[in-house]
Amino acid sequence: MKKPATPVEPLPNVLIEPIVRAALAEDLGRAGDITTNAIIPASQRARGRIVALRAGRIAGIGAAGLAFTLLDQSIRFEIEAPNGAEVAAGETIAVVEGPARALLTGERVALNFLGQLSGVATATARLVKLCEGTKARVTCTRKTTPGLRAMEKHAVRCGGGFNHRFGLDDAILIKDNHIAAAGSVANAITRARAHHGHMTKIEIEVDSLAQLEEALSLKADTILLDNMPPERLREAVKLTAGRATLEASGNVSEKTIAAIAATGVDYISSGAITHSPKCLDVALDLEDGALT
Amino acid sequence: MKKPATPVEPLPNVLIEPIVRAALAEDLGRAGDITTNAIIPASQRARGRIVALRAGRIAGIGAAGLAFTLLDQSIRFEIEAPNGAEVAAGETIAVVEGPARALLTGERVALNFLGQLSGVATATARLVKLCEGTKARVTCTRKTTPGLRAMEKHAVRCGGGFNHRFGLDDAILIKDNHIAAAGSVANAITRARAHHGHMTKIEIEVDSLAQLEEALSLKADTILLDNMPPERLREAVKLTAGRATLEASGNVSEKTIAAIAATGVDYISSGAITHSPKCLDVALDLEDGALT
Amino acid sequence: MKKPATPVEPLPNVLIEPIVRAALAEDLGRAGDITTNAIIPASQRARGRIVALRAGRIAGIGAAGLAFTLLDQSIRFEIEAPNGAEVAAGETIAVVEGPARALLTGERVALNFLGQLSGVATATARLVKLCEGTKARVTCTRKTTPGLRAMEKHAVRCGGGFNHRFGLDDAILIKDNHIAAAGSVANAITRARAHHGHMTKIEIEVDSLAQLEEALSLKADTILLDNMPPERLREAVKLTAGRATLEASGNVSEKTIAAIAATGVDYISSGAITHSPKCLDVALDLEDGALT
Amino acid sequence: MKKPATPVEPLPNVLIEPIVRAALAEDLGRAGDITTNAIIPASQRARGRIVALRAGRIAGIGAAGLAFTLLDQSIRFEIEAPNGAEVAAGETIAVVEGPARALLTGERVALNFLGQLSGVATATARLVKLCEGTKARVTCTRKTTPGLRAMEKHAVRCGGGFNHRFGLDDAILIKDNHIAAAGSVANAITRARAHHGHMTKIEIEVDSLAQLEEALSLKADTILLDNMPPERLREAVKLTAGRATLEASGNVSEKTIAAIAATGVDYISSGAITHSPKCLDVALDLEDGALT
Amino acid sequence: MKKPATPVEPLPNVLIEPIVRAALAEDLGRAGDITTNAIIPASQRARGRIVALRAGRIAGIGAAGLAFTLLDQSIRFEIEAPNGAEVAAGETIAVVEGPARALLTGERVALNFLGQLSGVATATARLVKLCEGTKARVTCTRKTTPGLRAMEKHAVRCGGGFNHRFGLDDAILIKDNHIAAAGSVANAITRARAHHGHMTKIEIEVDSLAQLEEALSLKADTILLDNMPPERLREAVKLTAGRATLEASGNVSEKTIAAIAATGVDYISSGAITHSPKCLDVALDLEDGALT
Amino acid sequence: MKKPATPVEPLPNVLIEPIVRAALAEDLGRAGDITTNAIIPASQRARGRIVALRAGRIAGIGAAGLAFTLLDQSIRFEIEAPNGAEVAAGETIAVVEGPARALLTGERVALNFLGQLSGVATATARLVKLCEGTKARVTCTRKTTPGLRAMEKHAVRCGGGFNHRFGLDDAILIKDNHIAAAGSVANAITRARAHHGHMTKIEIEVDSLAQLEEALSLKADTILLDNMPPERLREAVKLTAGRATLEASGNVSEKTIAAIAATGVDYISSGAITHSPKCLDVALDLEDGALT
Repeated sequence: MKKPATPVEPLPNVLIEPIVRAALAEDLGRAGDITTNAIIPASQRARGRIVALRAGRIAGIGAAGLAFTLLDQSIRFEIEAPNGAEVAAGETIAVVEGPARALLTGERVALNFLGQLSGVATATARLVKLCEGTKARVTCTRKTTPGLRAMEKHAVRCGGGFNHRFGLDDAILIKDNHIAAAGSVANAITRARAHHGHMTKIEIEVDSLAQLEEALSLKADTILLDNMPPERLREAVKLTAGRATLEASGNVSEKTIAAIAATGVDYISSGAITHSPKCLDVALDLEDGALT
Repeated sequence: MKKPATPVEPLPNVLIEPIVRAALAEDLGRAGDITTNAIIPASQRARGRIVALRAGRIAGIGAAGLAFTLLDQSIRFEIEAPNGAEVAAGETIAVVEGPARALLTGERVALNFLGQLSGVATATARLVKLCEGTKARVTCTRKTTPGLRAMEKHAVRCGGGFNHRFGLDDAILIKDNHIAAAGSVANAITRARAHHGHMTKIEIEVDSLAQLEEALSLKADTILLDNMPPERLREAVKLTAGRATLEASGNVSEKTIAAIAATGVDYISSGAITHSPKCLDVALDLEDGALT
Repeated sequence: MKKPATPVEPLPNVLIEPIVRAALAEDLGRAGDITTNAIIPASQRARGRIVALRAGRIAGIGAAGLAFTLLDQSIRFEIEAPNGAEVAAGETIAVVEGPARALLTGERVALNFLGQLSGVATATARLVKLCEGTKARVTCTRKTTPGLRAMEKHAVRCGGGFNHRFGLDDAILIKDNHIAAAGSVANAITRARAHHGHMTKIEIEVDSLAQLEEALSLKADTILLDNMPPERLREAVKLTAGRATLEASGNVSEKTIAAIAATGVDYISSGAITHSPKCLDVALDLEDGALT
Repeated sequence: MKKPATPVEPLPNVLIEPIVRAALAEDLGRAGDITTNAIIPASQRARGRIVALRAGRIAGIGAAGLAFTLLDQSIRFEIEAPNGAEVAAGETIAVVEGPARALLTGERVALNFLGQLSGVATATARLVKLCEGTKARVTCTRKTTPGLRAMEKHAVRCGGGFNHRFGLDDAILIKDNHIAAAGSVANAITRARAHHGHMTKIEIEVDSLAQLEEALSLKADTILLDNMPPERLREAVKLTAGRATLEASGNVSEKTIAAIAATGVDYISSGAITHSPKCLDVALDLEDGALT
Repeated sequence: MKKPATPVEPLPNVLIEPIVRAALAEDLGRAGDITTNAIIPASQRARGRIVALRAGRIAGIGAAGLAFTLLDQSIRFEIEAPNGAEVAAGETIAVVEGPARALLTGERVALNFLGQLSGVATATARLVKLCEGTKARVTCTRKTTPGLRAMEKHAVRCGGGFNHRFGLDDAILIKDNHIAAAGSVANAITRARAHHGHMTKIEIEVDSLAQLEEALSLKADTILLDNMPPERLREAVKLTAGRATLEASGNVSEKTIAAIAATGVDYISSGAITHSPKCLDVALDLEDGALT
Repeated sequence: MKKPATPVEPLPNVLIEPIVRAALAEDLGRAGDITTNAIIPASQRARGRIVALRAGRIAGIGAAGLAFTLLDQSIRFEIEAPNGAEVAAGETIAVVEGPARALLTGERVALNFLGQLSGVATATARLVKLCEGTKARVTCTRKTTPGLRAMEKHAVRCGGGFNHRFGLDDAILIKDNHIAAAGSVANAITRARAHHGHMTKIEIEVDSLAQLEEALSLKADTILLDNMPPERLREAVKLTAGRATLEASGNVSEKTIAAIAATGVDYISSGAITHSPKCLDVALDLEDGALT
């Protein structure tokens, strides 16, 4: 297991606790874990390890811990692989100990958070690794799961990626429809700048080098080059010459990203890392004899 | 496009509206769509089609519509491909018309619901198709996205699948840890029956034919055969002889499911259809010239 | 006082805490307990006993405790009569000790939960006692207080009863209107089975022995015999011969239940135990001199 | 049916809508009405009458209507017996018409509100009737159902009763424990008056005529005479001579209230009208043939 | 620093915790304090003092403490100037110690509550001081900040003022429009009394001595004298002769209040103390070298 | 009245409706407007004008309208002075017509939103006017009312100001404590840039021209010049020579802002416009005879 060089900062509990409580309520329904309560005595204790069934990058460990401790404060949840850690198949992610009923009741919710968010981190980490040796940073989009955006964006950071805007409100991203409505790249940027202040970045999507020139002349902070082949990206990088940040998007996958990164763009954005990651397979193994 | 023979019943608005409102709030943040509001005039109207970029099965159309109409009641959202419909690449799923600002603002939330839930439905439909000609029904698990269980379970139905239990409270599922704690299959079932009434199904996971016999003798409603190879499943089917419903799980994929279905089991459960579906690629195409 | 043979499992705090918080907010309003705060010094401590003023069966003890500890974490709440215990008039249910202000402020909310839920448990226990010596189990309905269903269903278990379905979604109950719409008992069951899977029980209400036969032939899990006199129920039991679970409903009261139970039905459902129970009279007695 | 002379003002929707939404969510669970959705076609319409199965006083008609219209805005809900109306057994309370599915799905939640709140109103109206010819008004307590206080207090008004304080914050009620802590009736009232302003009534519970004198000399607004027999109440009324409002409480029932009212007290408070009312039996009768 | 003679009772945590959580969520947004997390190591601790930059009266200290402890339970928050204390410029209000990140993250929310509520208390205390030597008490109105009424009303108490009604529901206040609709002062009071019970005070606004007489003859509890010059108020006081509580309102400011108080009215109400107070300037000073 | 040259975009209803609902619930309490319901007949209609009692800039008109229409959908609320309009004393802001009860019940909540948010807009507009003829833009801070940040930031835009960051998460603002912890301006910026991506602006507070140089050399987007006198600001502007955006803060008031603006800085931030604005005096005038 390899912990991250700098620890990834945790999401504040005040933000994730309501989400974990809602997930527990969703699973407990109106009667709680009727199987466990019928069969396991209240006094029974247990101890188990959460293990990775395949290699991956960890995210969501805080939510996983909360899924247990919100059920029963006396549960001890010890993290072995913190957010951002690289685990091999079979390695222990956390050790959990406490009342057997609460462990069995919280298991699925804990694993759902851990598996899905680690899936995002793992997918991100793969792209990041493929960009090594270039200056390209991997970034995400707003194609996230409804209700989990803050957690998925955090998982992107756990995977070594960087966050794009969090919503429609925290940065300006001018797309083709906006340009069409404004009449030109220049009009669109001018209107945006007239309405918004000094703490808001302006990004604009361009589809030709002519538009790129126009955007550069208006000092857009970032320029989105959508669906351009590597050779075109390379020209754009050359033409830009450091005057703006360049982001490439479209047709980004584990197969294509190295070539895109090699063009010299600053950021490469991927929707797939949040909308279609493969869940990391994780399981809770109770110690032998724990429940007998 | 092929609509379902019987329409899939919608989820009640009273359940999905709070989820869609939360998703909109998550995306709008504290200032709304600052790009669109700066550039598009309030009086501008637009019209567009939501199209499928690849073939798939539709789910989440209700949530997608709400994402627009909760922003602006005057938006007209006309469904062409209802929940459960099979669409080809390029086909129109819905037509949407109204104030251009609201259309652009609601687009991403609408597409996130539609893409992700259609992804679940599409993954389910593929497994269902591979079971054709057998009596096996495809069913889901509790490996769902936190906060979206009701919607994902509904998407499974849109894909032609059947729902397993919705939470820990609506059916009994006795697993290996429960059996270990109880001492035997028989003890576990007896305890469950002593605590729960006539409206709760009892399912028990067995890992040998001996345990299967024990479960059958105690009249478990459903028996979960976990990770058994097809030949073993076939023996189980034969031994059971209709005395209980049989569910196979473990190692279920598009490659393996046909062989599992051929063994004669009643249900085959898949976690992957909800925890790792590939998002269905959908887009909003505004009409040419709509915003100029 | 007589504790239950097997302890009744508690409802998870994650489910009841929001309900208790809402009840406290409802009583505290916008200024809190203005009487107590004006008159009782902040440093005053007190100790008291919650006593039963008449005999009954306890439920809601967890909510009662939370009503105090959510106001002030330092309050000690010691349960003497746990959920499911039988208490005589005058017996102590719990001892509570802490800041006098918090004790007086939390008193009414705590007693409201305890009194109303113990009322449900007590009404249930009376019916259960009248069925002794038969195999009939007492069960509840969906005629519960809005917002308190999970707690009232739990109180039914504290009274020795069994739970019917928790909502419209966790079991199928086909009533006369459904049969009328479907055209026949057989059609209704067939449609239900076509839509729902292996973890959902199917119950159907019949009003004649002919319909009973039809339901049995389609292997309904449970058959509801509504408003049948005992002799008719007896015929139904004979005809069924164990092929399905039989539930009797209608005109169930402390006067009639013994005769119904004697017919051999499996379950007898009562709406009155949740919709019209007499609140168990409970009070908080502060120790003499505690506040002088 | 007899409508109230002055219409009872409705509770604002903004207050009851969240409660009705929560009740629907509680009953719909995670999948909605699975029975109805499987059996009744989406296009089927129905029409029915909500009828009283026994005589009573109506309350909760607004919540009952919302239970339907929040499910489906197209439902028409016509009130025949408004809040506060006296109905005979068999009379129609409301007529409801719309999609058959929504009618069957909303039925139980609507009837639960209507039955339970009409139960409160009916119990109140009986006590009110027994006080006729005296000046005594019937009032309620804080012994209400957690979460439904505003609705139950409103139901008391529908029954012709008057509301006592709504919570711990909107009036001062000094009880025995407060007097003990303060050292005397006078100290308690003085402290209360020092802390609270001109818009807060002060009521104090006394248990002797000496205490009553003390309270009168300090100009308490209301004096609570707890558990005094009628002859003692009569003395208190005489001694008070209109200098304060007198409220009698304790041992109030349909058997005792007339004698208490005859003593000349101004208010008689009953906990039972809200904590143990008998639910009014109400049903939804669909029109013959509506669903065939 | 001068603590209040009698400590001001705190608002129950159960009421303010949700408001503080919402304020933290509002400030943390979807990613938390990105500046601090990038720059300050997780292990860094700090210690600081919250100081008053100008003299004032303290309120909101509980909310300020919660802003820190809800972020990190390990933070120690020691109150030096409790609610109601008078502080001089430069004095310490509280000492806070714990993880440096949490201190910096919670700072603004804590100071916003403390500054704004202390602003209300300070404005109130100034008016109170100007009434010294008269019997006039300062009271507030419903002109409060949406969402913060309970906290602002509490701040008024911290400033030595008294609370008027908390909402539209806890006392009757008959204004000119109500009198116009009723036809006369007498009609309005009679209708109010017919509908409401013994725990609800009745106040009526009058604009002439004739109306005042009418209100007195109907035994209104409180009479609101709106916008009357001092000489007119004096007449009203004389005419009333203690038969009702008199409240003066309109044109109340630090310049005018002494003259109004001198007229002998019982209460003087000010909207400005809650709708336009000057925020008390407070700051968090970290100890020198704390973060180096 | 002078409408804004470009209409200010409205805040989405999906964001403000929950805030307005909460404000209504806060004012309606548990029984609604008991005065109005007792005195005004349900059938009475009324019509009135919301007028400005002094000159100012309008904000919060959407929330004001919702306060009425959420109470009663049939109320007609016609806006005369939209957000951003300049009104003179006595001018009409909106006309409202509907059931008299709902108008009187919603009045205070509507005016509280309108008055307080227009107060923010008015204070902002004054500062903006004082900067005319310079390039300085007025901006706000995070010193906002808990729970109302989005609305107050919007009010700043209505006043002609520009928004600073909305929370701790949407831009980086490095302050003295961060620099102290990092060891230098350069270290702090480098760490920030290492953790955050291309859509996040970086602002840093400097207190000397040396630090300014250091910040410029690291290409900070914005530099905060805190509490510098005009001559120092002028030097900073000269030294910067357009290489970064400059924001001045500290000691900003109607007296000082013109001199600050004249130095050539780009932005001037004021906490007072949101933490201590004077509420704009607004009133609802019902038409003569409307209620008689």
